[in-house]
Amino acid sequence: MSYGELHAVLQGVLTKVGMAPDRATHCASLFADASRDGVYSHGVDRFPRFVRMIRAGIVDVHARPERVGGAGTLERWDGRRGPGNLNAYECMDRALALSREHGVGCVALANTNHWMRGGSYGWQAAEAGAIGICWTNTLPNLPPWGAKEPRIGNNPLVVAVPRPPGHVVLDMALSQFSVGALARYRMRGELLPVDGGFDSEGRLTRDPAAIETSGRLLPVGFWKGSGLSLVLDMMAALLSGGHATAQVPSLPEEETGLSQVFVAFDVSSHCEPNEVVKVVDRIIEYTQTSASPNEVRYPGQRTLQIRRQNLEEGIPVEPSVWDEVQRL
Amino acid sequence: MSYGELHAVLQGVLTKVGMAPDRATHCASLFADASRDGVYSHGVDRFPRFVRMIRAGIVDVHARPERVGGAGTLERWDGRRGPGNLNAYECMDRALALSREHGVGCVALANTNHWMRGGSYGWQAAEAGAIGICWTNTLPNLPPWGAKEPRIGNNPLVVAVPRPPGHVVLDMALSQFSVGALARYRMRGELLPVDGGFDSEGRLTRDPAAIETSGRLLPVGFWKGSGLSLVLDMMAALLSGGHATAQVPSLPEEETGLSQVFVAFDVSSHCEPNEVVKVVDRIIEYTQTSASPNEVRYPGQRTLQIRRQNLEEGIPVEPSVWDEVQRL
Repeated sequence: MSYGELHAVLQGVLTKVGMAPDRATHCASLFADASRDGVYSHGVDRFPRFVRMIRAGIVDVHARPERVGGAGTLERWDGRRGPGNLNAYECMDRALALSREHGVGCVALANTNHWMRGGSYGWQAAEAGAIGICWTNTLPNLPPWGAKEPRIGNNPLVVAVPRPPGHVVLDMALSQFSVGALARYRMRGELLPVDGGFDSEGRLTRDPAAIETSGRLLPVGFWKGSGLSLVLDMMAALLSGGHATAQVPSLPEEETGLSQVFVAFDVSSHCEPNEVVKVVDRIIEYTQTSASPNEVRYPGQRTLQIRRQNLEEGIPVEPSVWDEVQRL
Repeated sequence: MSYGELHAVLQGVLTKVGMAPDRATHCASLFADASRDGVYSHGVDRFPRFVRMIRAGIVDVHARPERVGGAGTLERWDGRRGPGNLNAYECMDRALALSREHGVGCVALANTNHWMRGGSYGWQAAEAGAIGICWTNTLPNLPPWGAKEPRIGNNPLVVAVPRPPGHVVLDMALSQFSVGALARYRMRGELLPVDGGFDSEGRLTRDPAAIETSGRLLPVGFWKGSGLSLVLDMMAALLSGGHATAQVPSLPEEETGLSQVFVAFDVSSHCEPNEVVKVVDRIIEYTQTSASPNEVRYPGQRTLQIRRQNLEEGIPVEPSVWDEVQRL
């Protein structure tokens, strides 16, 4: 499917559910861009759920985020339960503006919704020539290390470094595999490449179905990612004044009231763009000239290639998803 | 050994190698505090190597860090190859001062040395009532995901959240196990609790000796920690103007010219201390009341308990290490 066709249909649905035209255009772009860049799970695949949550009154299409406090270069914003991707984009934009003024800018956003593809706001920062870091808390979907029940979020963390020929954008959830990834491996009849969780007897396993049954997904790095998830949640709740994972409804279709943090560093203030590319390229080259049984990639490396291919050959959309989108 | 006795001996050695008295007092405290808090590997155990590096001219006892650039709340400092722990402490102190003025403060430090126990600067931020994040790059000691040779650092990352009854301090290197931890498991004749690397045939293994032989330690979360290490190195080099891991000498006794980043968030500006404790405690309580086969701990939870015990019963110091310290 062409980008234009995809975007037009998504925009049409958003307009139909009451989103203002300029916001529908932008919101549709954020969904279409994710699929264009190969992040299908948080692009078009996720769109029907987003629209259902608008219709259920969980996401308020009319709400715009507003600044509610803060001082200097640390601001608090209220997302007013508006569309998560528009809220996140506006807050990263504000963090970027603050960073241009102060060197570093930080916006902590309370009361928002799922931001869809977190990497979008990393690309946004890098496109502006800045280093960007952002993270979100989520519903409890991961057992803390040592526990059986999900009591922490997989709290995706995004770190973006500008490099005009191809930005470096890390977009990592803190579970080793997402629930969606487990399902995809299971449906393909494959084992996970590494342990992804515990089975119901508490043994580490690569069997996706066994982990889906137990619900005991692994944090990245076992106890380490569990601790990182916890401190990211604390920071998001403290800086924004919003909810922690403990207060977020635990059903995906009801997940709302999230807290997020957006930080931008104005690297351009003491480093020429050429110099930035030189520093980053030296690091990449060093890692990629290691003796390697497999290709060594930097985060985001495949994005531009997938983007080019999808723009040329059409963006892959699952027929069942597309049927659903057209019925929305 | 009593804290006082330990501190006096370390301080004496530092004075002997030429460190100014006030700095020797502080530097000895940072080493003694790490052992007092149970982080022996980066406390007294590490002291002999530190002194050897001073004597070898790699660490300059006389050098003090200085501000060399930056604007607003983003500053660049030059560590001038001075003692890594004193440099780090001063830069976190400066980041805290900037955060009180601007809400967020960031100091990027180039040309410094190993900071010893990274958690020290997290505790420092939390004691000041702030959220602190800091990280350092290191010599190449970890193969990037897909590679055999060490080309990334284990780049320890510290995140601290203030909680006066007991701060939350995450201090995690980005390798699943450190080289020192592998040696300790091997010497005890134990397997690692989870896979820690590859053996020489490229199979994941829990055998510490096999990983020491291959040198193929695992990043936390496999490809995810590998990507995180890479972006932390890029940020440290870009923000500080200093060296990336690619430029750091690869022998531990020659490791120098490191780059570090210190960020402080003045959470007190819009959150009363009582409120901070309430928010953090709610998160901790939620995770700890999960059905758990094992105890669920927050990062830093055991520190105060170990500190109390070590202050009461004496700080454990390996006799062989103590012999070496006394001969310095």
